[in-house]
Amino acid sequence: MTKLVASLTEAIQKCGLKDHMTISFHHHLRNGDYVLNSVLDAVRSLGIKDLTVNASSLFDVHEPLLQHIQEGTVGGIETDYMGKAVGEGISHGILAKPVVFRTHGGRPASIDTGRSHIDVAFIAASQADEQGNCTGKYGKSACGALGYAMSDAAHADKVVVVTDELVPYPLGGFSIPETEVDYVVQVEAIGDPKGIVSGTTRITRDPVGLRMADMAVKVIRASGLLRDGFSFQTGAGGASLAAAVFLKDLMVEKKIKGSFVMGGITGYLVDMLEAGCFQNILDVQCFDLKAVESLAHDPRHVEVSASHYASPLAKSSIVDSLDAVILGATQVDVDFNVNVHTNSQGVIMGGSGGHSDAAAGAKLAMIVAPLSRARMPLIVDRVQTISTPGKSIDVILTQRGIAVNPQRGDLLSKFKQAGLPVRSIQELKDMAEQINGIPQPLQTGDRVVAKVEYRDGTVIDEIRNVL
Amino acid sequence: MTKLVASLTEAIQKCGLKDHMTISFHHHLRNGDYVLNSVLDAVRSLGIKDLTVNASSLFDVHEPLLQHIQEGTVGGIETDYMGKAVGEGISHGILAKPVVFRTHGGRPASIDTGRSHIDVAFIAASQADEQGNCTGKYGKSACGALGYAMSDAAHADKVVVVTDELVPYPLGGFSIPETEVDYVVQVEAIGDPKGIVSGTTRITRDPVGLRMADMAVKVIRASGLLRDGFSFQTGAGGASLAAAVFLKDLMVEKKIKGSFVMGGITGYLVDMLEAGCFQNILDVQCFDLKAVESLAHDPRHVEVSASHYASPLAKSSIVDSLDAVILGATQVDVDFNVNVHTNSQGVIMGGSGGHSDAAAGAKLAMIVAPLSRARMPLIVDRVQTISTPGKSIDVILTQRGIAVNPQRGDLLSKFKQAGLPVRSIQELKDMAEQINGIPQPLQTGDRVVAKVEYRDGTVIDEIRNVL
Repeated sequence: MTKLVASLTEAIQKCGLKDHMTISFHHHLRNGDYVLNSVLDAVRSLGIKDLTVNASSLFDVHEPLLQHIQEGTVGGIETDYMGKAVGEGISHGILAKPVVFRTHGGRPASIDTGRSHIDVAFIAASQADEQGNCTGKYGKSACGALGYAMSDAAHADKVVVVTDELVPYPLGGFSIPETEVDYVVQVEAIGDPKGIVSGTTRITRDPVGLRMADMAVKVIRASGLLRDGFSFQTGAGGASLAAAVFLKDLMVEKKIKGSFVMGGITGYLVDMLEAGCFQNILDVQCFDLKAVESLAHDPRHVEVSASHYASPLAKSSIVDSLDAVILGATQVDVDFNVNVHTNSQGVIMGGSGGHSDAAAGAKLAMIVAPLSRARMPLIVDRVQTISTPGKSIDVILTQRGIAVNPQRGDLLSKFKQAGLPVRSIQELKDMAEQINGIPQPLQTGDRVVAKVEYRDGTVIDEIRNVL
Repeated sequence: MTKLVASLTEAIQKCGLKDHMTISFHHHLRNGDYVLNSVLDAVRSLGIKDLTVNASSLFDVHEPLLQHIQEGTVGGIETDYMGKAVGEGISHGILAKPVVFRTHGGRPASIDTGRSHIDVAFIAASQADEQGNCTGKYGKSACGALGYAMSDAAHADKVVVVTDELVPYPLGGFSIPETEVDYVVQVEAIGDPKGIVSGTTRITRDPVGLRMADMAVKVIRASGLLRDGFSFQTGAGGASLAAAVFLKDLMVEKKIKGSFVMGGITGYLVDMLEAGCFQNILDVQCFDLKAVESLAHDPRHVEVSASHYASPLAKSSIVDSLDAVILGATQVDVDFNVNVHTNSQGVIMGGSGGHSDAAAGAKLAMIVAPLSRARMPLIVDRVQTISTPGKSIDVILTQRGIAVNPQRGDLLSKFKQAGLPVRSIQELKDMAEQINGIPQPLQTGDRVVAKVEYRDGTVIDEIRNVL
């Protein structure tokens, strides 16, 4: 009756995993994850070849993937984000088949509709019972929400829960129910707590970052969206977090009661909840310990699935109700297209994550980024890789001014009226080039090493190998 | 963008509901439900004919169904339970096509696997936001868990949420997410609170019932299952509730820490949770206000789906981990088969609900019922309708003694050792007949008015019309 098996190897065998199948992973353990590497080691020892790895994100800790590719264990990768360690190998053409990049909303849409078939899903859970009810909310390796694993668990042919804390049945606070789980494996550790969550992510102390954060809050205010019911998403970068802090102060001062804050959750957003700025946190992934603690104990802090967060094929998702989002960029072009996939050398070191989902849904999608980084200008004629199409980006904010997408004349007049330093995108580009010069055009190879799917599944760009 | 529509009629039209389609309902509003009748009135006014109504249960409040059948609006019924008001009509052959009876686990299994297709599901929710996130936990018409609606929401082509309390987006404490919802209709009232939940169901004061309850607890104790980790399900009948109270006293006295109590939840089970008898309540349906309150506020009290509760086709369900269940019966036969569908006249006045699911899963499935009711003996040679097959029933307990299924010799010896009044099933039958005489054999008609599906979907019995 019990689903407990003695080892990952036994679970893989019982699942009937064979050559050419697809296995999936979620990334809530982030750069502390042990599970993906352990599973692939077990797969290799069984001599299984040419698996496709469908992972919601890949971090530098997953660098051993490169060896598994070279040895033929892994023959395909589908993911929403790829850190530079794996990205370097892919960009150098190590994998014969192009990587498929999706978004955090596009991935569950693809799984829910059967376009992405998963043979075996591996769920890393910080607590589970022996029937497979499991969660990331509690336990020594707690990582918080398991939102990105939910479509995998619901639709994979076989589902293996990997845990380092087995609790007596039933685990009442389950995030994924036993109805979806075939096997449970107890391991010594599913990850390194230091890599899973940081203490608390720090806001920037850089004056440029602080200036941009301040301006971002002024932009939100000028947009007219900052009223009771306001909803907000921001990333975990230093300037984004600073913007959250400034926004909190303003909302408290003006007694604005927002509706929800969403996306990857940090302690700064928990502070906003606790200060009464928002009615709920809708949490698909926790970024720090304070967020994990809050999710485990505050009923206003609610775990949601990746489909609920952002699927474009769900009957609706939370991004559809989003007012304002602050997003990052490595490159922006004069058509407002954004690149978060490749760096100035054309090497993969990122991915959309929820970038284009939130941008598509939000009434105000704002890129906040410095005009240049490491002597490379932010704004170019044409981004190296289109991660998010310009039609979903409303505002580009830099320390030297903000550019408004021409399709948003309504915002432009509001910002001018508010006395914000509005510039044309071309003006910002010129400023950047005055500082850094015009960068040499990048030469890439002929091989397509990755295809970038937009959230609806259409291919919006291809990434070529670096020379 | 909003899913709000002005009326049930508009929702039905937008869903494209047509003749011969299937619509579904859940029964958490019980005998206070207004939604099923309102929807059918709207359907009739639109001239749509020959719908199949798939409802998790039908109560006496749904008697207007009979008129909808006579007028041709409704041409088929699938349900897990049918109160006598509707049952009388069905038993008299009012519906041309046999009713399909399922179990509370078999119904979601059938929906999850696509065997039962639902065109439009109507979800009665005591709170919803305009994107369709909804729950039964809060609001003026709160009914508690929405477990029986979850498979419907996940798999129906179109899903309409009907609510009498629209709250600002997002409803953080959603039971069903917006991802599954097409339309939201606000109505004045989804039900009559007096019919939805009683104050608190009362335990029996009848000495026969109390004697049986006391004996039931002794049986559980003698079975050896009553140790730390013990799990339990019981119904809301007077003797079952009395057994819960006696069991609580014993568990507190013996300091036994059980794992979970499940099924339809009453305040008595909440008392057991609060007394530390159990770690969790796993709740698919609330029977009274105290249960609703507890579900809304105590994180140990967890809402679960009907699939999680009892689906035989899920990878596991909670009934698979159940130790002891106390169940009722209108008739039992010498092969331990149980009838909870038809009364002594052969009229439909019930249904399996979770009866055969819990019986199949539990290590100790015990029927508790008086030896005779209204001069009809409990035990007969052959039950009029097989609701739960005898192979899943371990013990029949009456005020005059207990019979143990011959396949459970292990229990028999334990009970004898404990000095319990063990009798053969034949002996109990003889006692009942001594009191009441041998009932006349029941004459039924030739027409099959209902088919009884076992939880796995196989037909285990047919019900014929009454004369």
